[in-house]
Amino acid sequence: MATLLKGKEVAESLKQKLKEEVEMLCQKGITPSLSIVIVGDRADSAAYIKGAVKRCSEIGIECNVRELPKDLVQDKFVDVIRQLNDDEKVNGIMIMRPLPGQISENVVKYEIFPAKDVDCMSPVNISKVMSGEEGGFAPCTPSAVMEILHHYGIDPKGKRTTIIGRSMVVGRPLAMMLLKENATITVCHTKTLNLAEESRRAEILIAAAGKAKMVKRNMVKEGAVVIDVGINFDENGRMCGDVDFDEVSQVAGMITPVPGGVGAVTSTILAKHVIDACKIQNGL
Amino acid sequence: MATLLKGKEVAESLKQKLKEEVEMLCQKGITPSLSIVIVGDRADSAAYIKGAVKRCSEIGIECNVRELPKDLVQDKFVDVIRQLNDDEKVNGIMIMRPLPGQISENVVKYEIFPAKDVDCMSPVNISKVMSGEEGGFAPCTPSAVMEILHHYGIDPKGKRTTIIGRSMVVGRPLAMMLLKENATITVCHTKTLNLAEESRRAEILIAAAGKAKMVKRNMVKEGAVVIDVGINFDENGRMCGDVDFDEVSQVAGMITPVPGGVGAVTSTILAKHVIDACKIQNGL
Repeated sequence: MATLLKGKEVAESLKQKLKEEVEMLCQKGITPSLSIVIVGDRADSAAYIKGAVKRCSEIGIECNVRELPKDLVQDKFVDVIRQLNDDEKVNGIMIMRPLPGQISENVVKYEIFPAKDVDCMSPVNISKVMSGEEGGFAPCTPSAVMEILHHYGIDPKGKRTTIIGRSMVVGRPLAMMLLKENATITVCHTKTLNLAEESRRAEILIAAAGKAKMVKRNMVKEGAVVIDVGINFDENGRMCGDVDFDEVSQVAGMITPVPGGVGAVTSTILAKHVIDACKIQNGL
Repeated sequence: MATLLKGKEVAESLKQKLKEEVEMLCQKGITPSLSIVIVGDRADSAAYIKGAVKRCSEIGIECNVRELPKDLVQDKFVDVIRQLNDDEKVNGIMIMRPLPGQISENVVKYEIFPAKDVDCMSPVNISKVMSGEEGGFAPCTPSAVMEILHHYGIDPKGKRTTIIGRSMVVGRPLAMMLLKENATITVCHTKTLNLAEESRRAEILIAAAGKAKMVKRNMVKEGAVVIDVGINFDENGRMCGDVDFDEVSQVAGMITPVPGGVGAVTSTILAKHVIDACKIQNGL
């Protein structure tokens, strides 16, 4: 049975460090502040926001949720973002995606101020992830994966590291982040031929395909580190990952569970980004 | 003996298409125009510029070279870029890199207007390469690699495609461009363990390591497509690639020579980008 990589443990450890940082900021009279912007109401977004608000409050970050009507026109939405850009009390802005059809992400991403863009919507931050330049914000989910690896002392340097999935929120940025840490990276996807053969070579395997339990035992090398980014629901309505945990945990060396894995770390990463943004904006 | 993938042939074919496009633009009274900016004099840059000017002139693109003194201060350099941004007659701007020490690429890249940035210096264009979004400009060298694949009908879809090298001018953007065309991509580099084992799996192998003749026969799969991006000089002062051509051409299925491979295509790609920029700027 594989060792569990516990997201909750990673998040707790990071949370303690962040609380200390917030205390130091408070002593200077600074309170980090996050604004979450949501248009309309989506059940999945509501659950995410609830978790983020709770985590921010535990750490001492002020968190404001701006709920906007679902039929808000693009110009008005852009006005809201510009107000938040200009508001010195706001350190981080998180825009919940997907946006409704009348608001184009391709317009909004150029509006959000890169220094406040704590979930990597701006091309400036995307470009920094690609080049490995410091001082930007990577998306929270791949950052959570890196945090788990760091916490458990798993160094990807020189390791065959395979990512299943090529999205802009996980697969592509994660490939660039792992490359920066000297992993040999492979990106597989729906058009990959003989996926099992590819994934079975991985010393570190990251499943970010968005397909319930698609990673089976025969796709995993004996002793591999398996990180499951998926959040799906199985035929019984129970939350599950992209990895068939019952099977794969018999062969993997280390594995993240779902729930309690990557998803348990993302909101703490968001908090970290808000604190980092706050420090930079205050010249600290 | 492997089939030669001839860069000159690819460039010629593209050049004919571009000449027709320029003729159509001329009929509307439009002449595409490129400004190349160079600070100080470097022999390698001079050779590149000479090739670019010649190719542009053959195609009917106006090409102006701005040679600036090597001790020019950053503010004055930025002024030059802003003038070119504002000049409606200039469709494309190419800044020769590396810049001298007193001018920071990290400042300049935010100044160049993305719609005129024909060699992908701006974060807006880098971000588009990463996301696969249309309407931007990828760097000329990886674009030349893709042009060679397209010209010879080599579809990377589902193919194990391995890139040796992770630079921002070739390896990383090329990985993203190949991913967009559905290749299964692997990126290897100096920290990769057992490089030969990795590269030998590739159906398409791209050498972009910048190390003379480092790809040997034992690193190449029988029948593989081998694209050599390297431009080096061997112990006798003769130009050579990253691939040991004499050895590897015995085992590869198709191979680009050096010279006469990727390097023969880049200046024509630059011309293509200038024409594309011109069309977009003129609403065509």
